[in-house]
Amino acid sequence: MKLLRVGPAGAERPAVLDETGTPRDLSGLVEDIDGTLLADEAALARIREAAASGELPALDAGSRIGPPLGRIGKIVCIGLNYHDHATETGAAIPEEPILFMKAPDTVVGPDDTVLVPRGSVKTDWEVELAVVIGRTARYLESDEEALAAVAGYAVAHDVSERAFQIERGGQWDKGKNCETFNPLGPWLVTADEVPDPQALALRLWVNGELKQDGTTADQIFPVAQVVRYLSQFMTLYPGDVINTGTPAGVALGRPEPKPYLRAGDVVELEIDGLGRQRQELKGA
Amino acid sequence: MKLLRVGPAGAERPAVLDETGTPRDLSGLVEDIDGTLLADEAALARIREAAASGELPALDAGSRIGPPLGRIGKIVCIGLNYHDHATETGAAIPEEPILFMKAPDTVVGPDDTVLVPRGSVKTDWEVELAVVIGRTARYLESDEEALAAVAGYAVAHDVSERAFQIERGGQWDKGKNCETFNPLGPWLVTADEVPDPQALALRLWVNGELKQDGTTADQIFPVAQVVRYLSQFMTLYPGDVINTGTPAGVALGRPEPKPYLRAGDVVELEIDGLGRQRQELKGA
Repeated sequence: MKLLRVGPAGAERPAVLDETGTPRDLSGLVEDIDGTLLADEAALARIREAAASGELPALDAGSRIGPPLGRIGKIVCIGLNYHDHATETGAAIPEEPILFMKAPDTVVGPDDTVLVPRGSVKTDWEVELAVVIGRTARYLESDEEALAAVAGYAVAHDVSERAFQIERGGQWDKGKNCETFNPLGPWLVTADEVPDPQALALRLWVNGELKQDGTTADQIFPVAQVVRYLSQFMTLYPGDVINTGTPAGVALGRPEPKPYLRAGDVVELEIDGLGRQRQELKGA
Repeated sequence: MKLLRVGPAGAERPAVLDETGTPRDLSGLVEDIDGTLLADEAALARIREAAASGELPALDAGSRIGPPLGRIGKIVCIGLNYHDHATETGAAIPEEPILFMKAPDTVVGPDDTVLVPRGSVKTDWEVELAVVIGRTARYLESDEEALAAVAGYAVAHDVSERAFQIERGGQWDKGKNCETFNPLGPWLVTADEVPDPQALALRLWVNGELKQDGTTADQIFPVAQVVRYLSQFMTLYPGDVINTGTPAGVALGRPEPKPYLRAGDVVELEIDGLGRQRQELKGA
């Protein structure tokens, strides 16, 4: 299933996409698309059944699409998780996953405006595969348990301010938590529709020019390993999100003058089967 | 006022402490102690009035005390923010605040069990002054605006696994987000009762032995500056928490063999006017 949330920011309705691409209203059936729902097999089964019946009310296909997940608990991000991206930034291939965090309040819809922070001259793009957790993951011992904890996948844009991240006295979080820095969606695609999360092509364009063209096959630590690894350091709960890293092609990896984002730029990104985002950049 | 939350984990009732130290039930008046309440001057005034009337029902003073804040949005932490702590760890005095993050799901009550993570041999203690945000803070320009955004203060225990934090391939967050790693409370003391947040003594004991004995006067970046600084990199919302750093005396700063925490240890901590915590350590 492709779950989504449609409507004004903060007042989105839960929905499911039908086979014609029309969002169908789930608000009579569930309160929201969130961790509580994702952990509730019976509720998910009811959605499946209702979607198959064809009787759910259609929503206006032109409405704003919000992030496909509400009440996100935490967002854990993996740094330098693609061989080609580690190489372009001059970093060594990590021996174990590098971990940083974004606050859930950075999340916006897939087509919402992204704000270039005041004083920023190094706002960068990063297309990423987001993993959405559906089952509590704590000290997992196998890749099977890890994949069983995954409710689904989504496109994430891990917007990053490189000067804040690297040149301002310590810890990457400083350049990762600016307002609007985590567009998510359009859909939360349930794991049953993503048979192999390590075989997904990811692409990102800036003003129509292809900048990133990677595949999750190049991930240094694949999804199952990332989930299992994280569960040794923290407990993952339903409704948590993992941004699993970005492939090569970011501004940071280019020769000087690096083509960082400015107000007026348009970024588009997509992952096979998970949909497409489009953001216009504006000044904060 | 001293606001608190009393009852079983996940089902705490909002309360206010009366002058005899008895928690008085606020559940007839407000839904929870959270960002929504802290941003609502009128609701806070109603609590003040009800508390003064002496007519609020008393709660059992022996009940469990939970964290004094529900629905925390994010926890931003400042690293190496005391001169004496930077010195003891051999670090340079930071030129600007170092920033890392803890997930809200690490928060437990002030006297709840703290779990030593599996495989941990370097679990460390850190008493900290927590700042609770009550008004949205975005690109603040003055210390006055920054202090006006503070709803109150609390004791926080920023439990830290030093091997995870420093020796496991990158970014401190890895050693800061283990389950139960952020005891908070007992109270959220409203800012009007803390006339000078830079004049608070902080103390921490392990098994009855005084380990940390500092003062917020030693903070490199005082509270107002921290809030103003953070607001240039992210938006702070009502219900967010800032852990403002720890003074000298942590296990990491001691000669070898460093006295890291083990199951069975008891940590007690307090800050003048903000109350006292007591945690027993257990294996995860």
